This record gives sequence, structure tokens and C-alpha cells, in this order.
Amino acid sequence: MSAPGVTREAIEAAAARLAGRVRETPCVVLDGLVLKLEGLQHSGSFKARGAFNSLLSQPLPAAGVIAASGGNHGAAVAFAAQALGHPAEIFVPEIASPAKLQRIRDCGARVTVTGATYAEAFAACEARQRETGALLVHAYDQPATLAGQGTVAREFLAQSPGLDTLLVAVGGGGLIGGMAAWCAAVGGPKVVAVEPEGCATLNAALAAGHPVDVPVSGLAADSLGARRVGALMFPIAQRAVAQSVLVEDGAIKEAQRHLWRQLRVVAEPGGAAALAALLSGRYLPAKSERVGVLICGANCDPASVV
Amino acid sequence: MSAPGVTREAIEAAAARLAGRVRETPCVVLDGLVLKLEGLQHSGSFKARGAFNSLLSQPLPAAGVIAASGGNHGAAVAFAAQALGHPAEIFVPEIASPAKLQRIRDCGARVTVTGATYAEAFAACEARQRETGALLVHAYDQPATLAGQGTVAREFLAQSPGLDTLLVAVGGGGLIGGMAAWCAAVGGPKVVAVEPEGCATLNAALAAGHPVDVPVSGLAADSLGARRVGALMFPIAQRAVAQSVLVEDGAIKEAQRHLWRQLRVVAEPGGAAALAALLSGRYLPAKSERVGVLICGANCDPASVV
Repeated sequence: MSAPGVTREAIEAAAARLAGRVRETPCVVLDGLVLKLEGLQHSGSFKARGAFNSLLSQPLPAAGVIAASGGNHGAAVAFAAQALGHPAEIFVPEIASPAKLQRIRDCGARVTVTGATYAEAFAACEARQRETGALLVHAYDQPATLAGQGTVAREFLAQSPGLDTLLVAVGGGGLIGGMAAWCAAVGGPKVVAVEPEGCATLNAALAAGHPVDVPVSGLAADSLGARRVGALMFPIAQRAVAQSVLVEDGAIKEAQRHLWRQLRVVAEPGGAAALAALLSGRYLPAKSERVGVLICGANCDPASVV
Repeated sequence: MSAPGVTREAIEAAAARLAGRVRETPCVVLDGLVLKLEGLQHSGSFKARGAFNSLLSQPLPAAGVIAASGGNHGAAVAFAAQALGHPAEIFVPEIASPAKLQRIRDCGARVTVTGATYAEAFAACEARQRETGALLVHAYDQPATLAGQGTVAREFLAQSPGLDTLLVAVGGGGLIGGMAAWCAAVGGPKVVAVEPEGCATLNAALAAGHPVDVPVSGLAADSLGARRVGALMFPIAQRAVAQSVLVEDGAIKEAQRHLWRQLRVVAEPGGAAALAALLSGRYLPAKSERVGVLICGANCDPASVV
């Protein structure tokens, strides 16, 4: 299977479309690691990039856009739709955090809470899309989404040249798919995938040789709890993700606390997962290895990080 | 009264001392303003700069260091003393937040909570210093402190050239004194002072023509509640602070909420005060004016910013 559209040129084109629409999120050094604070992005996660790229790279029907989301993608689609003047309808599973629901509603989108998991919310979203004819913006398995997320890597490497390794959390894989595509295209750093043990979709897919369904659970399930990785990202991951590591929920919680105590940065569980791999020793960099870590989302109750 | 030591050369020397000791804190654009996120500094505020510069620029007695602080300076002195291997004793007033007390204790300092205000804690600190002979590190009225804080402006202007104006919160004035000294020395942006209406120490001093005692109260009193501005900073402010504006506590609270909702950044009340001047219209930039805002501290309960 190929990954149409996730070329260097597609990511460059996405970056041009996103100029002035998304924030250049800052980097900061913590414990010798370069952290990119993508939770400071519009809508509170990297998802704004894929959402804007999707809405700006194709004609939209009068019914606007529709999406299913554990929360962050929905907030991003709602934000982009509001910014560009389109109606938006978002389906979220019952595990979505109140912070994410509020964020989506604040952007004026119509919200339907349904199903125990992302996969169930997605089924309801698809049924509704057939009624309304709105453009379905997938959370991670469309070329425009991957190309948009790939701009995170392009921006990170421009801000912090010379990194050897990037650690990136994986849910459905749109983020790491786009970022790994960019890194491979520019001969850049190796990319390490980090997943919670309770949402090991990429780890299972790499072991099986193709995307497979896995049960999802745990602290980060509302952002990383896709049931399987995307078909578009999987061949990119096979080719361009160097390593897949798993982290325990306790390590994620500790990474959230560490980010708050040492840096006064709030990260949601999925946003702290990549750092958790380092703090817990699941990924052990070489002594001279220059490591970049993507802190990819901050849509949580800030009281939860103390 | 002159301001010995707060020259361009003193600030350059401080920056050299601080290299590798303090973080280069990131900048990010929000609503067209360039925010410098100095709350991500070690110890949660800019105070780490003055503390390290004080400890690294003079010999220390075996008794180590002693300081009085509304909390942030104490946390910074405790952090710097721990990093450099010196004992530290910190006096804090009863209004200090639990977050700040915990931060000081986490750095291994001996903490005494005494007095209703910073001024009372300072008196107790001076008495104790006469017993122990420890080096008293003043929160804002020593040349090494001002020179250290001045590195914030040096770093900000290097990261974001072309700013016309910097908005900076004022407590005892060490931060704005150092920053205004730097800006004046390099022919840089104009500096605007922002104070809560309940802690208008600089505003009152500028009106009187000399530092005067003012009553302190309100949301930001634990970080901006010095009773009078420093003697060293005052002549710098007369010469190099373009404007003094006051903000209401409600505007500070709204600025904290805005930073969280729009940017997922946590700021304590004093840290959000400079932004409050813009959001509330107390400072109205010209249309083409390029404005930088220092978010100077983040030592609060993160639940308080929602």
C-alpha cells in the first residue's frame, strides 16, 4: 500500500496553506531534551494543522464539515471551520474529557456524544455524513491530514537543527505518519513511536505486518485510543519509524507531573506519553544523542497535572 | 541616586554567568502580541536569573544565603543555592501561596513563614541574618539582582527583534529596572510598567518623585506586593520607563483565563498582569505597534487559571 500525497512537496504545500493559520509553537530545553510545545497550538493540540490543511485544500459543501474524534481532532476541526466560516458537526465518544467537549462547543460546532470508543463515534459520524453530505474530515487517515501533521516535523527541525531522534506519541498514527514522512524525505532524525500499553495500535500492527484492531484503555485513551492505525500511515511507519516503544500509565502520569513541576507546562496524558518513554527508561538514548520530544496536546483539566 | 552596576556591561556579564544555569524561555505569538514565557524558567519565574547572578558574582559565607520573599524570589534563591551547593534559609509572609512554599521546600531550603506582608517577612529575615552571617540576597534592590533580571530583556530582544514596546509587571521593580536599563542601553523598545491597582508602588513613586510606601492587597500581592519600589530601580524607571499603567484584579483574572483558554499557558496573577493591561484596554497600542509582553511567573495552583 502506498501513501499518496504524503510527500515532501505535499508537506511543503501544507505549510504554505497553514501560514498565518496555525501557530509556530515554541521549543524549550528540559533535562537536555528539546521539547516542542505543540499543546500551545490553536485548539490545544497539533490536530489544528491537519484540520486546516483538510479544509483549505479542497472545496467544501454547504453542509460544511463533519468529524468523529476522541476530542482533539474535533476541537481542531471545529476551530478551523469557525475560522474559515463553515458549519461543523462533531461526534465524540463518551470517554471524551469535559475539557475537550467544552473546547469543541466554544467553537460553535454541533456536538453529539455517542459510543464507548472512538470507533463507535466514527460509525455514527459516517451514518450522519450520508444524510447531510458534509465533508468528512478523518482524524488520521486522509492524505491532507497526514501532510498537515507533517508540518510539525518540518517546523521542529527548522527550530532545532541537529536532532538525532524524535519521540512522537501514536494514536491513529496521523501525526507520526506525517512527521516520519517528512524526516525520511529530508534525511532527518530517526523517529521513535511511543504508545501507552493500553493503546498499542502501531506496536501491534508492526508485529502483525498490517494494521490490526486492538482493545483500547487507560489514561490516554481519549487522545491515543484509536482502535487501529491508519492504512495510509502504516507503510510509512514500516519504512520510516525506527522503533516502537510502550509506556505504562503510571509513567505517563509521572511525565505530566514532571512537566508541571520542572517546567510549568501542562500536557494531557497523550501529550506527555513521548516524554514518559524517556523518564521511564523505555527509550534509552545514547550519551551523545540529541533527542527531540513532541509534547503534542494540552487539552485536559490543568488540576490533573499536579 | 544612581544605579551602580546596572549597565549594559553588567547585564552582559550576568548573561555570561547564567549561561547553562537558566533556561532560554520561549516566545510565542498570541493575538498579534509576542509573549515571552518566563514562567517556564527554573523555579517558575524570572527570579532565578537574579538569584544565580547574585550567588555567582560574589564569595558566599559558610552559612550560605538568606532571603525574604513573597515566594518567587525565595523559590529562586533556594533553587540556585541547591544547584550550587549552598545552604539557604527563606522567610515568607503568610500570604505566600502553598504552591510557592512547596517549591521552596522542594529545593531543600529552610522555610520560616512569618508576617502578614513581604515587608514584615523581610524584617524577620534581616534579624536572622545578623545571627547567622549568611549572605542576604535581596528580592529586588541589589545591583546583581537587577543585572540578572536585565538578561530577560537581552534574551527577549534577541529572540524577537523589532519590538516597539515591552509590557512588564512591577512588584519591587527589580525586573523592570533591569529590563529598562537594558532597553535604554541598546536603544531598544520603550518599556511600559504594569501594576495591579492594589500594589501600585511604582505608580505612586513616580507621582511622588521618590519611592514611597503604599498599602498592598489583591490577587497578585503574593508576587507584586512589595510595599515600595527599590531605591536602585527608581532612577532607572524615571529615565527609562515610558509609561505606568494600573490594572484591576478582574482584568488579571481574565488574562489568566485567556492565557489558558487560548494558549494552554498557566500564569500566576502577577505573571498575567502585563497582558491584562492590553486585554482591558489600559494600554492601547498603536495599530502598527509591535508589542512584547513578559509572562513572568507561573507559580500557582493550575486549577486557579481555568
